Amino acid sequence: MRLALQQLNATVGDLAGNEAAIREGIGQAKAAGAQIVAFPELAITGYPPEDLLLKEHFLRDAREAVERLAEDAQGIVALVGFPERADDVYNAVAVLADGELQGIYRKMRLPNYGVFDEVRYFQAGTEPAVIEVDGVTVGLTICEDDWVPDGPIVDEALAGAEIVINISASPYQAGKPAERETMLKQRARDNLTAFAFCALVGGQDELVFDGFSAVYDHHGSPIARAPQFAEHLLIADVDAHAARAARLTDTRPRLARRVEHRPVAHLGRFTTTAGAGAEPAPHGDVAELLDPDAEVYAALVLGTRDYVRKNGFEHVVFGLSGGVDSTLVATIAVDALGPDKVTAVVMPSPYSSSGTQDDARTLARNLGIECLELSIKELMEDYDRTLAPVFGERPSDITEENLQARIRGNLLMALSNKFGWLVLTTGNKSEMSVGYSTLYGDSAGGFAVIKDVPKLLVYRLVDVRAKRDPDSPIPESIVSRPPSAELRADQKDEDSLPPYEVLDAILLGYVEEDLGREQLIARGLPAEDVDRVLSLVDHSEYKRRQNPPGIKVTSKAFGRDRRVPITNRYRG
Amino acid sequence: MRLALQQLNATVGDLAGNEAAIREGIGQAKAAGAQIVAFPELAITGYPPEDLLLKEHFLRDAREAVERLAEDAQGIVALVGFPERADDVYNAVAVLADGELQGIYRKMRLPNYGVFDEVRYFQAGTEPAVIEVDGVTVGLTICEDDWVPDGPIVDEALAGAEIVINISASPYQAGKPAERETMLKQRARDNLTAFAFCALVGGQDELVFDGFSAVYDHHGSPIARAPQFAEHLLIADVDAHAARAARLTDTRPRLARRVEHRPVAHLGRFTTTAGAGAEPAPHGDVAELLDPDAEVYAALVLGTRDYVRKNGFEHVVFGLSGGVDSTLVATIAVDALGPDKVTAVVMPSPYSSSGTQDDARTLARNLGIECLELSIKELMEDYDRTLAPVFGERPSDITEENLQARIRGNLLMALSNKFGWLVLTTGNKSEMSVGYSTLYGDSAGGFAVIKDVPKLLVYRLVDVRAKRDPDSPIPESIVSRPPSAELRADQKDEDSLPPYEVLDAILLGYVEEDLGREQLIARGLPAEDVDRVLSLVDHSEYKRRQNPPGIKVTSKAFGRDRRVPITNRYRG
Repeated sequence: MRLALQQLNATVGDLAGNEAAIREGIGQAKAAGAQIVAFPELAITGYPPEDLLLKEHFLRDAREAVERLAEDAQGIVALVGFPERADDVYNAVAVLADGELQGIYRKMRLPNYGVFDEVRYFQAGTEPAVIEVDGVTVGLTICEDDWVPDGPIVDEALAGAEIVINISASPYQAGKPAERETMLKQRARDNLTAFAFCALVGGQDELVFDGFSAVYDHHGSPIARAPQFAEHLLIADVDAHAARAARLTDTRPRLARRVEHRPVAHLGRFTTTAGAGAEPAPHGDVAELLDPDAEVYAALVLGTRDYVRKNGFEHVVFGLSGGVDSTLVATIAVDALGPDKVTAVVMPSPYSSSGTQDDARTLARNLGIECLELSIKELMEDYDRTLAPVFGERPSDITEENLQARIRGNLLMALSNKFGWLVLTTGNKSEMSVGYSTLYGDSAGGFAVIKDVPKLLVYRLVDVRAKRDPDSPIPESIVSRPPSAELRADQKDEDSLPPYEVLDAILLGYVEEDLGREQLIARGLPAEDVDRVLSLVDHSEYKRRQNPPGIKVTSKAFGRDRRVPITNRYRG
Repeated sequence: MRLALQQLNATVGDLAGNEAAIREGIGQAKAAGAQIVAFPELAITGYPPEDLLLKEHFLRDAREAVERLAEDAQGIVALVGFPERADDVYNAVAVLADGELQGIYRKMRLPNYGVFDEVRYFQAGTEPAVIEVDGVTVGLTICEDDWVPDGPIVDEALAGAEIVINISASPYQAGKPAERETMLKQRARDNLTAFAFCALVGGQDELVFDGFSAVYDHHGSPIARAPQFAEHLLIADVDAHAARAARLTDTRPRLARRVEHRPVAHLGRFTTTAGAGAEPAPHGDVAELLDPDAEVYAALVLGTRDYVRKNGFEHVVFGLSGGVDSTLVATIAVDALGPDKVTAVVMPSPYSSSGTQDDARTLARNLGIECLELSIKELMEDYDRTLAPVFGERPSDITEENLQARIRGNLLMALSNKFGWLVLTTGNKSEMSVGYSTLYGDSAGGFAVIKDVPKLLVYRLVDVRAKRDPDSPIPESIVSRPPSAELRADQKDEDSLPPYEVLDAILLGYVEEDLGREQLIARGLPAEDVDRVLSLVDHSEYKRRQNPPGIKVTSKAFGRDRRVPITNRYRG
């Protein structure tokens, strides 16, 4: 059985564009001799379409697109994810064959945790389903269905499925592709079915879908695997009868024991025009996982490229301070868009050191990007003058520091308005967590590239990029200089924050793991730092709520992933 | 049977404060001779606690607070809403009596639409429940349980409940209190039970809970009703046996027909020390609904007061332009906090008219609030000078308009930083919808008081306030002058937007009702305006995502209520 899995970069709401891409995929799969071609979960709408799913006309338009695509499914079976409007709305896969929509499987497990809100939109399906293609029984599942051991794959295998296909839209976080693959292999082994995982790829607002579609045999060994973070049509030949043969001789009691199971819908028997005479699928199409930090870097590049591209921008701009954060944003922007689409702005104040300024200019030159210079000194003085009648003799404080950041934010936004550029912000997750940023200042912009990247990871990612080319574009002093916001004389981050090793450890426990004060102290973290950081995190929720979107790379990103009240008196 | 319903203003996360308020409520209810006292849904944590519910130690702390409260339940039965950690987490009500936690009812219907995410946190209960208090059978339900006709009230009534108590946290939107009461009366009538509705009151981030707790007899007639938008301990005497007697003679087939029903848990029989000898409850405690626009105004006042107070602020500041929006924000702020806690700032530019400036000063004087004046002229010129080397000979455009708004935003934030004041923003929903606002400019601030108030409703609310006192503080010219942002010479809102009558009608259909282009045109709205407005709404989602929180008053507010992707190519 030859399978084609289209690892598609769908765009949310672009029904016409997604329909065209699916049509092209069906054609390419047929040309490659595939008998079945699968597309990701909700391929026709993009994922997640969120409240577009509450519009009846959107659901109607999506259905019509799927019905048009059915006409292209001639001599091949196409599996296309779409939202099905019936008595309720279902997250479904359409079986397209012989020019018609032949049947529908409805997702049975709806995730409603973390970044997922599927119960808001969908009713759960109740019936596992199989189809028969050229004599082979194929089970159908959708994403979360296989995230549990007792999902529909069990019933489908017992109903004779030799191959199970999972269409998916699984958001990236660091390390997840490896964990996910471990789980998927287990499903294949446990149920003695070949298993095909067809994943969405691409960026959508705060999410990146990493792809890594794959086909495993019934032992869980990969037959074929698509690369991460790129569109790909994966072709694989599966020995469909090996699974059945293995079951006859399998001595494990698991499958045999489960005699009672849910009824399984049979959605049809189809004969394709591919198969017998075709060339074998090319060997060696088994992509490997990237190294862990390189994987995160690649996610940030794709997430940035897709946010920019899918929102119709062509050029980005950001403040380049000569610090490690804006350096990382600079290399990501260049890798995502190319140097001619990137403008950096150096905005010195009297507190800016010549070292950081020089590093910024050197980096911009090395990366080949435009570098503008706008001094903020006069504007600082003019704000002081304007506010003097109200402020009187009060001493300089955080007010004046924030004004510097806000002047810079205004200048970047003025460039954005005048030239149509998207402003990237450069704050990292450690800063966002403790509110070490200025609202409408350094947090002003359209996309917060590294907002979910903790500071220590920022350093590692800069290192990944520095080592990529023999001749690194990144001046060594950018990495070796102690971090500073340079908003007053001789300021250093560690004057007002714990060392980043401690800060990031506290934040990992508090934000990502939902641990409390006592548990963090029990981990050996200093009580004083724990109290301070937890208070800072809780009191800066109002700032994070007004930050631009940015790419989720950790197990819990601020935003749709971590939903805490602003008004909240609970501590710890 | 004497009931006490404590219409409580709980604060999210303030376990100690809520515990103390509940303890005081139990004491007052006992003093009033009540046999049962009820508190709102999740009274111990406040509602909605959102992802605090993912912290195991938060759930443990909440449980311990409830167990401490049990000690106070002597001679009275107290019903306290709390999140129960068992095999899973449940939205529950604890029955406290004889000094102990005697039993728990778990909410069976979990809302997961609109502003609700309860499936994210809770497992649904499966068992209706009753208690017996001084010989009277009392059914227990929680909020959404009674939003459907076939909820646990049906089973509880069939199991003999003469009174059903619903503890609730039901967010306000215009007109909802009246609709809700219609529904609750219907439940009482249909099931021939007396019905007590104990509601949360107060503001929590974007939500306001309006209260309006009430007790209805088995005909659905109100026996007692608490006022809207204020804390209140409602006491009512219920003729508990009248319901039972009525059922014996009722000829409607509904109750008799339903012979099979779910098993109902009996959580205990309790005897109280109140009852027989007590004075009758005071009569006439049946509050009336406010007029529709006065109701919205009251919601905005309470929402503002609670956001300010619960977040530890004492003083607010905002830009006062002399337009109708900032006028409304000014009166709300004064009504919420008192004039001595409110500072207005007039920030003239060369495009500001003397008429609006004078009106702003007059209004501030009439309201008795501080009024600062800060000219932005020099800062405008200085930004132009700073940007001239990059902008060259390019003509003035939206860039320079936005800079004016951003200078004003910076000045307000500088006052906030220096004096610890909360900045209120003054944009209305019509503007927010079409992106007719400047990010980091007029949208910069901590709380967006009227962000969910459409422009035509802004006028009506100003009218409500103007007519409240015999001598209106609001100069007539503020209302009669055509709206303008005054960001360039002779600018009028209606130069670039349809008339507000048309705009608000399009927005009602598109945003609140999820209608599409064709449906809006079929309503008689001009196709050209529809196309223009829909495109503006879709393209300004990125702005709204960075706006401060503000009070929901319509059926669909931007924010947690309407969740659309930023990256979205669907139109219509």
